[in-house]
Amino acid sequence: MAIQARVYVTLKREVLDPQGDAVRRALGTLGFVADSVRVGKFIEISVDTEDRASAEHDLRAMCEKLLTNPVIEDFRFELD
Amino acid sequence: MAIQARVYVTLKREVLDPQGDAVRRALGTLGFVADSVRVGKFIEISVDTEDRASAEHDLRAMCEKLLTNPVIEDFRFELD
Repeated sequence: MAIQARVYVTLKREVLDPQGDAVRRALGTLGFVADSVRVGKFIEISVDTEDRASAEHDLRAMCEKLLTNPVIEDFRFELD
Repeated sequence: MAIQARVYVTLKREVLDPQGDAVRRALGTLGFVADSVRVGKFIEISVDTEDRASAEHDLRAMCEKLLTNPVIEDFRFELD
């Protein structure tokens, strides 16, 4: 059986988010007032293992090596 | 005070995800076995209201009008 994981990737607080700003302005033109908008990624991964510890270890490595840019992004993940 | 919302945007199940497939293959080249990878968006919005009902109403409208493509994407959101 595989373990389902959900990974949340967000820009670090101190990093500017031009995409989020563009969304905020676009929401404004539609009449919605948003103080701030930050756009990140939401990645659903099905990991082929039954061992939760091994899945957690692998997910951390996947995030650090491929899924995020650790200079500008943070991540967290949840397993089912 | 503003209400913090987290919006999760995912491709509908029946829609192909070439970005997710590219990530799955890239993970494979790094030695990780993932059965499936689906890439979505995670949007943090600070809504300028104290009324939760109004914030929910606005967020639904934001999702339907701007944040998602309802033909190919689903969304859900949470308020703090």
